[in-house]
Amino acid sequence: MPVVTNGRLIYAAHPSTFIEPGVHLQYVEEPIDTDTVPLNGGILIKTLTLSSDLYIRRRMRDASVKMFFPPLTIGKPVDNFGVGVVLRSEDPELTPGDHVYGYLSFENYSVAPPLSAKAFQAPKKFDKHPDLPASTYLGSLGMPGQTAYSAWKAFIAEKAKSSKTLFVSSGAGPVGTFVIAYARLTAPHLKIIASAGSPEKLELMKESGADVVFNYKTTDTAEVLAEHGPIDIYWDHVAGATLDAAIQNMNYFGYILRVGTNSGYNENQAGIKNTAMFIHKSLLMRGIQVGFGDDMIKAQEGFQEEATKLVLEGKIKNNETRYHGIKEAGNALADIHRIQTLGKTVIIVE
Amino acid sequence: MPVVTNGRLIYAAHPSTFIEPGVHLQYVEEPIDTDTVPLNGGILIKTLTLSSDLYIRRRMRDASVKMFFPPLTIGKPVDNFGVGVVLRSEDPELTPGDHVYGYLSFENYSVAPPLSAKAFQAPKKFDKHPDLPASTYLGSLGMPGQTAYSAWKAFIAEKAKSSKTLFVSSGAGPVGTFVIAYARLTAPHLKIIASAGSPEKLELMKESGADVVFNYKTTDTAEVLAEHGPIDIYWDHVAGATLDAAIQNMNYFGYILRVGTNSGYNENQAGIKNTAMFIHKSLLMRGIQVGFGDDMIKAQEGFQEEATKLVLEGKIKNNETRYHGIKEAGNALADIHRIQTLGKTVIIVE
Repeated sequence: MPVVTNGRLIYAAHPSTFIEPGVHLQYVEEPIDTDTVPLNGGILIKTLTLSSDLYIRRRMRDASVKMFFPPLTIGKPVDNFGVGVVLRSEDPELTPGDHVYGYLSFENYSVAPPLSAKAFQAPKKFDKHPDLPASTYLGSLGMPGQTAYSAWKAFIAEKAKSSKTLFVSSGAGPVGTFVIAYARLTAPHLKIIASAGSPEKLELMKESGADVVFNYKTTDTAEVLAEHGPIDIYWDHVAGATLDAAIQNMNYFGYILRVGTNSGYNENQAGIKNTAMFIHKSLLMRGIQVGFGDDMIKAQEGFQEEATKLVLEGKIKNNETRYHGIKEAGNALADIHRIQTLGKTVIIVE
Repeated sequence: MPVVTNGRLIYAAHPSTFIEPGVHLQYVEEPIDTDTVPLNGGILIKTLTLSSDLYIRRRMRDASVKMFFPPLTIGKPVDNFGVGVVLRSEDPELTPGDHVYGYLSFENYSVAPPLSAKAFQAPKKFDKHPDLPASTYLGSLGMPGQTAYSAWKAFIAEKAKSSKTLFVSSGAGPVGTFVIAYARLTAPHLKIIASAGSPEKLELMKESGADVVFNYKTTDTAEVLAEHGPIDIYWDHVAGATLDAAIQNMNYFGYILRVGTNSGYNENQAGIKNTAMFIHKSLLMRGIQVGFGDDMIKAQEGFQEEATKLVLEGKIKNNETRYHGIKEAGNALADIHRIQTLGKTVIIVE
């Protein structure tokens, strides 16, 4: 198969609010000769699966705005965490047939620079377990699982020992379900309260191990927290009004871990008013990003081994919403901001 | 002098906004027989000096609202940190002539329960240095100094080693001047930026050791911080819009210590909008109160010895605004919310 069709998702324009496929993201097809395309010392990858994540909205920005994650480049394909197979290699560290995980281009076939170029999140070889689908490495065994695992270990595990209550907002996403399940396993004494916006999500959070679940669209967050609190640990995926309600209901010396800002990706977000409570209750609030900072990097140790075992044993589930093909990737990236898909949203490319 | 006049400041009503002497606080005079007033196992104290602090506004609340510091009781005298001399004692741990420091009643003469009753901040014996006025023990050697010292040691000293910039808001108060001076002494590599609201305060912050001072009423906080930042450590006495401007200008892994809420004691306070920045920059924000929590209590060790030495050497100044007599105590408590007095506000009673 030397000349084949290469589907590509091109980043076309910065969105000002919600992502619109066709406007901000354009699907194109081009021929590629997989036998002869120049590798320049790198590798040719066949994409198996790609991840759709909320944070990519933050990468859809002008390059002058500095953030940890690099901006997408207009006119070039979107890239994000994915799993692929090496077809050809000029990199001595990789050979055809190797599975790689890292930032992959949203294309059926893409050329990546050699590892020695040290590109951001460059695809690296990993041992895919034969019993697990590749997309598991984008969910419980990928960035979301790693976020939950390393943030828990670095900042929450010790505090959890002397805590009674954990509140997880947006608890039906891939980080939320992982952290609920992991908390259930490693700190079984905790009362776990979790919120989300649909009956299916409440069910998923229950299955993951939450004791109290509620729909924030139909139930008052502050009332639930007042009834089941005070809250010792708040694992915050949303910020906004939910964060304010949580601050009001935190226990003395409570710990707020800011993991996501789901309520504020596309629209102006409600701020927080209860700043005086930080003093009255000696609260602590910390923001984290996966792989950012010595604490988070150190806490990643042991993740693949421990999480793979838990997934294989069924103790941590990998719940997925699947889109198919690069052609659908634009919808996968856009929909998660509106429809709020269940669990991890992935694009199955192969 | 068996029967003398006892001036008393009675807490009369909860304020809804600013404190009004005569309405919320009433000055009365009553005779007291210092020879015969029953002690019930406690002590008779002659008050030397009393402290006026912003946080007392938080104690002027309904008793049903729970906070670390207890509410004032309507119909009873105000109490707060003060220094007195024991006149009579039925407590075996205290003898006439002893200096005591702790919560004193806003009266010329007051009876305190024995130490064994373990009242909140019960007056305890201390060795007043003969060269220092009693009111020093309400400022640099009292609660404000202890707040700055223990919070710095518990949470900031380690971070300061690898930091370049420190921003202190409301830096001309007793905690602000202490922390600026202490940072200058113990972390001389730091660029110290400090804000306040009058030329006299800017001068005082300069004298205390700040490198960059600005008037937040006439200068845009965000612009100053952008020019001299990014900020590694923000020592926050005000919250509100200043906190939001600081969050915008924090460095990656920046540390925000919430020490005061000066902008919000009497009026609705501006909230903070930049909650997403906590994630982008991996920020940490912690609220503290003096003597509250293991970390803060442990960090108090060595305070009296080290701070007394620094004050005697003139390395930490004790800047004061003085009011005279219990009759003026109501104004002292009210004025600090409006006039914003310079340094530590004290009532000299003797």
